[in-house]
Amino acid sequence: MSAPIHELVAELGDDVVVTEPDRMAGYRYDRAHDPDAGTPLAVVRARHTADVQAAVRFAAAHLLPVVPRGAGSGLSGGSSAVDGGLVVSLERMTAIDVDPVTRVVVTQPGAMNAQVKAAAAEHGLWYPPDPSSYEFCSIGGNVATNAGGLCCVKYGVTTDYVLGLEVVLADGTAVRLGGPRLKDVAGLSLTKLFVGSEGTLGVVTEVTLRLVPQQRPTATLVATFAELDDATGAVLDITRRLRPSMLEFMDRPTINAVEDMTRMGLDREAAAMLVVQSDEPAGHAAAEIAEIEALCEKRGATEVFTTDDPAEGQQFVTARREAIPAVERTGTLLLEDVGVPLPQLGALVDGIAAISAAREVTIAVIAHAGDGNTHPLVVYDPADADMAQRAQTAFGEVMDLAVSLGGAITGEHGVGRLKRPWLGGYLGDDVMALNRRVKDALDPLGILNPGAVFD
Amino acid sequence: MSAPIHELVAELGDDVVVTEPDRMAGYRYDRAHDPDAGTPLAVVRARHTADVQAAVRFAAAHLLPVVPRGAGSGLSGGSSAVDGGLVVSLERMTAIDVDPVTRVVVTQPGAMNAQVKAAAAEHGLWYPPDPSSYEFCSIGGNVATNAGGLCCVKYGVTTDYVLGLEVVLADGTAVRLGGPRLKDVAGLSLTKLFVGSEGTLGVVTEVTLRLVPQQRPTATLVATFAELDDATGAVLDITRRLRPSMLEFMDRPTINAVEDMTRMGLDREAAAMLVVQSDEPAGHAAAEIAEIEALCEKRGATEVFTTDDPAEGQQFVTARREAIPAVERTGTLLLEDVGVPLPQLGALVDGIAAISAAREVTIAVIAHAGDGNTHPLVVYDPADADMAQRAQTAFGEVMDLAVSLGGAITGEHGVGRLKRPWLGGYLGDDVMALNRRVKDALDPLGILNPGAVFD
Repeated sequence: MSAPIHELVAELGDDVVVTEPDRMAGYRYDRAHDPDAGTPLAVVRARHTADVQAAVRFAAAHLLPVVPRGAGSGLSGGSSAVDGGLVVSLERMTAIDVDPVTRVVVTQPGAMNAQVKAAAAEHGLWYPPDPSSYEFCSIGGNVATNAGGLCCVKYGVTTDYVLGLEVVLADGTAVRLGGPRLKDVAGLSLTKLFVGSEGTLGVVTEVTLRLVPQQRPTATLVATFAELDDATGAVLDITRRLRPSMLEFMDRPTINAVEDMTRMGLDREAAAMLVVQSDEPAGHAAAEIAEIEALCEKRGATEVFTTDDPAEGQQFVTARREAIPAVERTGTLLLEDVGVPLPQLGALVDGIAAISAAREVTIAVIAHAGDGNTHPLVVYDPADADMAQRAQTAFGEVMDLAVSLGGAITGEHGVGRLKRPWLGGYLGDDVMALNRRVKDALDPLGILNPGAVFD
Repeated sequence: MSAPIHELVAELGDDVVVTEPDRMAGYRYDRAHDPDAGTPLAVVRARHTADVQAAVRFAAAHLLPVVPRGAGSGLSGGSSAVDGGLVVSLERMTAIDVDPVTRVVVTQPGAMNAQVKAAAAEHGLWYPPDPSSYEFCSIGGNVATNAGGLCCVKYGVTTDYVLGLEVVLADGTAVRLGGPRLKDVAGLSLTKLFVGSEGTLGVVTEVTLRLVPQQRPTATLVATFAELDDATGAVLDITRRLRPSMLEFMDRPTINAVEDMTRMGLDREAAAMLVVQSDEPAGHAAAEIAEIEALCEKRGATEVFTTDDPAEGQQFVTARREAIPAVERTGTLLLEDVGVPLPQLGALVDGIAAISAAREVTIAVIAHAGDGNTHPLVVYDPADADMAQRAQTAFGEVMDLAVSLGGAITGEHGVGRLKRPWLGGYLGDDVMALNRRVKDALDPLGILNPGAVFD
């Protein structure tokens, strides 16, 4: 029995409700390229909240899966299409409204992170969270995954900036949670519950974000190390005393992939490289970078470069941001996102190198080192079945390793569909049951993003 | 039918399970002095998580209300005892463990906010949230209410620092949520859901808090204004451009109450006073304060005093912190905690003055002005029945006013029992129903802090 999708087409128009397979093809996958992505019944390209409500009501009436979708930049398969379901695309809902007095921005979910940053900057304000993909990831997706980024080591993650949401619930009701108030404790913290819920509890249709004054110009340090342990040791020395606005790590395979792509002269022999920034006020940024330089040298850094010129520093940040695409040029990726308590960073990086050697697959490691969040990229050739199997084994082993070190299986990308098999083992039965109870209370029919996060 | 409390006494001992009315008397009220506070069946003075679990299991088996209690400093009646229920006191669970490398503190809920700050300071670290009551409020209570304070205008509220919790659920199961990781998006954001849940979803038995480097020495400004609108206008001018680490407001009745108590020479004729601090690095703090001074003068401040001496500045901060006790000496208080979007601060303050005049009761206004969170204190003489009635009317009118201005009925104190009648009207039916669904999913028997937040 198939649902009478023509009724939804008639209600919203065929510009909104797309059913042609060719036009739907681009909505089946996100950046995780989930091989199990399904074929949707229709893609609803919502223009406003009412379209989302209509789609969810239709789905509820016909028990159809609803997969919310932002820019499709997700790395865990959280917006892979489900067979016979509706993809609700928020890409057309891109309005951004900055209120510089209240110091908030009210944005629709389809706006890109970079667009929100730009709108805030027009008023001398700043929206800090900065996933590497900030130019092509949507704010709705950022909220869905509680996205992080590079400056989070100092400025926190998405949830720290979400003051309010409009959400379409599983029965099509639209509710407003929180609002443009820095303090509001009236009722349960439902705003925060929806952040990071990956579309499993509702569809976010509007976001109110706190803004802060524009970031000051940054000073930058780049240091290379001959030994992994020296680099991770330097990270601990830095975070123990200082609070840089960025503290990034790349290992040798990553450095080489970036160098292959950019030819910017990175040291191909280095075991690891740190990219560190300070945005302290004039005079103090250079002083903080000088302190970090001394700490890196004490750990035997082979080369340290510092600059007060933000444009020059930006080149190294860009190199770091392009690491995933650079590594992607060397093969197909399984993208990890494991995080550990900071003192375990060295053990995690060393353990990943051991898994890489044992499984004979390259694992390139990038890390938001200052907050213990790493992105090991398992590289394989899908045409090589044995290698693909070894890559898959390594993928699981890296998560097991992180958990054994007190870490998490995903720091900022979300569980999606790709990491779902590991979630129960990570959380344990009691916490998984607690998750399930909240899910069932808010989505009793189980129509919201089935297969993501939950079985 | 009464529950066989002797069984719980036998299990935990009579040092833990107190049933003598005299010894229980001190556990009936919090600082809100709820006249409807009940008489508990027993007070469980838990030594560790297992005691809490035993108490909750006993309560679940016998359908008894469980009221979690920290230091009893709550201002909304959230820990008023319930007739025939168990008060679960966390006052004995005070262990604090700072990990300076991971830069977190793991603390039991009974530790005072000030003790956590002090433990962090021993390692050069800082736990920012600072309710005025920080010396006598517990971290567990701070988590229960998502408490704020004075530095929140720059540093955020309790939830922004909570990385992990141990919680005893309604069936006595203890679960660990989150942990010492700055990024963790594996599963729903349950850690954040429990923050601010006022004991209605579980009993928090351990808290993992993020720490930041010690605050720098502060520069301070005190400005007085002849007109309320000039003071609130100055607040907007300041927050539009700058990011002070404190931005507090006191009106004339508050200034006079504080002056009566402290005799520190405050201007009794001023309509309002601002206390502002900057903790920017050396040189920059004084510059920020100078900018604020210019903004206050532009708004016609009658007097502006600035100091770089942290000790001198601290006197004014102490005056502000003692405002509630100072006003309390003038009568019995109904404590408001309304917050509005910043541009509405002037309208809120003016509207409160109008309510005060119309109802012929003093309403002294203190505010964390920089984040729009105000504490109007409705003062009355309980022996004067007519005045008590007018005070109660004014109390409701202030909340109605805040809501009409886009504000919230409680910014940082919690709904508790005193503001429960206003919660539904503020949230609306749909959001109230959503709150209720989550509550029912996690506490199906309704034993956790009944009467607080929910009917």
